[in-house]
Amino acid sequence: IHLSQGKERTILGVIGDGSVLGEQAIDSIPCVEQVVRIMKPYKLVGRDFHPDDTEVEVKGETFGGRKIQLIAGPCAVESRAMIVEAAAALSKEGVGFLRGGAFKPRTSPYSFQGLGEEGLRFMREASEGTGIRIVSELMDPRDTELVCKYVDVIQIGARNMQNFRLLTEVGDTDKPVLLKRGMSATVVDLLMSAEYILSRGNRNILLCERGIRTFENSTRNTLDLSAVPLLKNLSHLPVIVDPSHGVGRWDLVEPMARAAVAAGADGLLIEVHPRPEEALSDGSQSLKPQRFTRLIEELRTIAGAVGRTI
Amino acid sequence: IHLSQGKERTILGVIGDGSVLGEQAIDSIPCVEQVVRIMKPYKLVGRDFHPDDTEVEVKGETFGGRKIQLIAGPCAVESRAMIVEAAAALSKEGVGFLRGGAFKPRTSPYSFQGLGEEGLRFMREASEGTGIRIVSELMDPRDTELVCKYVDVIQIGARNMQNFRLLTEVGDTDKPVLLKRGMSATVVDLLMSAEYILSRGNRNILLCERGIRTFENSTRNTLDLSAVPLLKNLSHLPVIVDPSHGVGRWDLVEPMARAAVAAGADGLLIEVHPRPEEALSDGSQSLKPQRFTRLIEELRTIAGAVGRTI
Amino acid sequence: IHLSQGKERTILGVIGDGSVLGEQAIDSIPCVEQVVRIMKPYKLVGRDFHPDDTEVEVKGETFGGRKIQLIAGPCAVESRAMIVEAAAALSKEGVGFLRGGAFKPRTSPYSFQGLGEEGLRFMREASEGTGIRIVSELMDPRDTELVCKYVDVIQIGARNMQNFRLLTEVGDTDKPVLLKRGMSATVVDLLMSAEYILSRGNRNILLCERGIRTFENSTRNTLDLSAVPLLKNLSHLPVIVDPSHGVGRWDLVEPMARAAVAAGADGLLIEVHPRPEEALSDGSQSLKPQRFTRLIEELRTIAGAVGRTI
Amino acid sequence: IHLSQGKERTILGVIGDGSVLGEQAIDSIPCVEQVVRIMKPYKLVGRDFHPDDTEVEVKGETFGGRKIQLIAGPCAVESRAMIVEAAAALSKEGVGFLRGGAFKPRTSPYSFQGLGEEGLRFMREASEGTGIRIVSELMDPRDTELVCKYVDVIQIGARNMQNFRLLTEVGDTDKPVLLKRGMSATVVDLLMSAEYILSRGNRNILLCERGIRTFENSTRNTLDLSAVPLLKNLSHLPVIVDPSHGVGRWDLVEPMARAAVAAGADGLLIEVHPRPEEALSDGSQSLKPQRFTRLIEELRTIAGAVGRTI
Repeated sequence: IHLSQGKERTILGVIGDGSVLGEQAIDSIPCVEQVVRIMKPYKLVGRDFHPDDTEVEVKGETFGGRKIQLIAGPCAVESRAMIVEAAAALSKEGVGFLRGGAFKPRTSPYSFQGLGEEGLRFMREASEGTGIRIVSELMDPRDTELVCKYVDVIQIGARNMQNFRLLTEVGDTDKPVLLKRGMSATVVDLLMSAEYILSRGNRNILLCERGIRTFENSTRNTLDLSAVPLLKNLSHLPVIVDPSHGVGRWDLVEPMARAAVAAGADGLLIEVHPRPEEALSDGSQSLKPQRFTRLIEELRTIAGAVGRTI
Repeated sequence: IHLSQGKERTILGVIGDGSVLGEQAIDSIPCVEQVVRIMKPYKLVGRDFHPDDTEVEVKGETFGGRKIQLIAGPCAVESRAMIVEAAAALSKEGVGFLRGGAFKPRTSPYSFQGLGEEGLRFMREASEGTGIRIVSELMDPRDTELVCKYVDVIQIGARNMQNFRLLTEVGDTDKPVLLKRGMSATVVDLLMSAEYILSRGNRNILLCERGIRTFENSTRNTLDLSAVPLLKNLSHLPVIVDPSHGVGRWDLVEPMARAAVAAGADGLLIEVHPRPEEALSDGSQSLKPQRFTRLIEELRTIAGAVGRTI
Repeated sequence: IHLSQGKERTILGVIGDGSVLGEQAIDSIPCVEQVVRIMKPYKLVGRDFHPDDTEVEVKGETFGGRKIQLIAGPCAVESRAMIVEAAAALSKEGVGFLRGGAFKPRTSPYSFQGLGEEGLRFMREASEGTGIRIVSELMDPRDTELVCKYVDVIQIGARNMQNFRLLTEVGDTDKPVLLKRGMSATVVDLLMSAEYILSRGNRNILLCERGIRTFENSTRNTLDLSAVPLLKNLSHLPVIVDPSHGVGRWDLVEPMARAAVAAGADGLLIEVHPRPEEALSDGSQSLKPQRFTRLIEELRTIAGAVGRTI
Repeated sequence: IHLSQGKERTILGVIGDGSVLGEQAIDSIPCVEQVVRIMKPYKLVGRDFHPDDTEVEVKGETFGGRKIQLIAGPCAVESRAMIVEAAAALSKEGVGFLRGGAFKPRTSPYSFQGLGEEGLRFMREASEGTGIRIVSELMDPRDTELVCKYVDVIQIGARNMQNFRLLTEVGDTDKPVLLKRGMSATVVDLLMSAEYILSRGNRNILLCERGIRTFENSTRNTLDLSAVPLLKNLSHLPVIVDPSHGVGRWDLVEPMARAAVAAGADGLLIEVHPRPEEALSDGSQSLKPQRFTRLIEELRTIAGAVGRTI
């Protein structure tokens, strides 16, 4: 303990393991005005501990390298025909990853909740014909084994970012995990949730910015692109961006996807639906395939301008 | 469909079951400027469906009646001795409910995670000597049966407000559920989560305001007391307030507890710890027993002023 | 400068006048990780400097004493007849202060902008018959002298809380100033704006909480009642609450007014309009006179319960 | 009025001039559940009224055309030598606009408030040697004539975005106005403030996104880049971005400047200071000249990728 005595305040500098002295315990001593924590609360996910970029490899494709990865597809798997059609179209465009929800976290109990295991099976079939990799959400620790059987990347949704049991569960597997930032999670909160996974031994983590809740009501969320360079700065993990949920309007997805690449994203998660007007969820934020094809071309040019490829 | 034709815009008024026509599907038709939903998205938790106040009874004490219920205790169960001491002291003050975390959702994987089943057992023992009712958090659907065995009220924490599998699970029991508002959940989001529980058949729900995330950084959260009359207005369910998490500073807990009673709360959830400076979590927001005793007196006067008792 | 050397970090504790060493200048030195300011940035408005409560006296009535003051009236002065009628009715109820906008800051240039000097003259006439004190907003430093001629308390609106020229201008008068918290102002920002006024010599400042902007969209703003005890704690200035703008719905004004009194407010600012449905602005948040009369009775009981009067 | 009668609700569709029927007046009628406004509240700044892009010309350089304009310089004018040095360096890099504050809105009355008219004179001198155009802030309606004498573009700061008297004042001039979004202003609020200026006759308006206040505390503000395509979509006015205030950390300015160009910005406002560590304000967010030179090169490549020039 180091003492700095002044006319009006005295500062006690304590260096060492913060967990020994509870910050709150000290804070509640009457003569203490403020406790300031200097040390970062995360370790394994931080750059201090691991200065080099982590690359996450999924069946021959890598997140965190020179290539920016695309993950595209419908919000939910709605039928076998639809997901097979989507997989074929995306694969032809060179997209490496197919997203699609089989277990859907919906605000309303009356909304379509996903096809469950059947949806996962349809995705797997769509993959078999094309080689495209499967990304789908896990909502319940009891489904971990089931979901792992079908998918190549487990998605943890924004509403479950602090479902610590689920984090522990996926931390005990070796599947790559796409961890979405919660709607009111700070960048440090997101890193702490990644620390839960990494502290169990699973290093294959993709951090995902997908918009935060603010007072602005013209967009579904406010896409916080400054989180991309900030996360790359603080952590060695790859960072991807979901502009579709970030803005919630298809007409803003394209400029925000371009901006995400320019900001340094290692991948993009974009909703594409063959017929958005018939989508069972999130139709208004899904791109039509022909617009998505055009977007890939634009992204390729931007990627080139920042020394990357798509 | 009713047509209203104007010089610059045409309004189509559609009345009926909104789920047939997806709002988003219509929104993505190019000539449509805006889709406005008029109907409330919740049904069973709303006043329209059930105009009278719901009373939730727990072993002889009632939430939602004239009496304002107190739920007090430490953030976490730390030892058998401590929780038994707390229960005895609170019971002597006429407090009907003991709170204490056995399963703790902590931002950091390195923080104290709770004593687990042992903690629940200690709470049950503390209850047996005093008759005090037990409130404790459920974090994992796999623990539902276990937690139900020990507690009188299941708490669903803010971070799990949209853990829909957990909501479904507690909806399938008949235990009273204390549902905390998520940090970025609107009042309508909270009601939708309650709808998940009620739609499974469990009507014993207590809604809990515990502060939302805003830009203000002098308090841990911003306690949104307007949610109290708003929720009472929109829903028939009892509403309780947690000023301890809402402000995160013990010195502000007392005025905010008073304000919550004046705003119409049906109960209060307050952190009380025999020795806050030694607490393993949230010590800085816990009241000492003697301050809590004084607070109860103050609350009694306010309760009387609004025609209630404590 | 005091040095605390550790294995991973070195902390330099500096005690003294912070303005000599710019925080930002130090922060931009490459090897510096973080600069933490311990000292409060305000002086004259803080309790450290002036431990006793400040009382602001306005023609025989005092803010900051045992009595909770009521400021009521329509959002805008709409006509001579209307404001005279309002003043008479409020005065009969024992309300000491009449609010009414003559210069109105409106989001749209096409909305009613207020009657200007004519409105102030009508308010003064309304006061002459009743003795009620006049509170009205100043928007433009060029109108300071004009507004001072008519009003007893100058209101600085939320949108002008950081209009520093306007603050300086009212700081150079000796009129009491009601300073509203900006929609995205922290409690410390509000104190810094009060410091602008006090540093010019005008000590007659009333701080006013009137709701902040958050993601919640069921209410116009989120009324942050924890700001009341927090401001009373940090500063010696009286604190008043405007529940009408805070929630923006007349049906929530009553419980929030009660809560504000229970939280320790020194005064309330409430919109009352003889015929809210005809109001030229903010009709939906105005109380009818008969409801306001009933509210005063309720507030009197709560005030009694916290050892105050109305 | 068109009537749509349903089992549970009746919708009245009203088409015409909304100002005749006050929305709030209707809303306060007891049997009315909700009033929904369909029409946009702005007219002159909207695309409906003026479908083609507006180009704002300033002494031979144009905002809103193919070329992306750069506005760079120190936060505050600190001395004649410093601003002349900055102007020369920036001009050599092809930067068309020099920013620098002479009147500074500072949160604290004790902070450096700017050199006032002397600062403006120094900027004008810096311009004379180089031809660089001058952008500086106006805080007080009484200074309008004075500021117009020296500057080429008047800046209205975030804290004054709803200082309606100031907006009216600059609306009465023909000087180009750079209007910054307020910290808690929605995109629609920003457009309404621009409407104030345009409704007085001044069409030379540049809208500026500079970050909004959110719960995230690792950055000074949250830069809302989705506002760029959204504003371009809703309005015909040019849109520029200030990444320096948006993030408040020099190490994040570069990726966010790149992202802003990719999102479609018509210009950038960037703080550059010869010696950031000595800056009297905002040093920690200022770039050093050599980094800025490198950034321009990067931006040129991105601009090319989206079909623009710098």
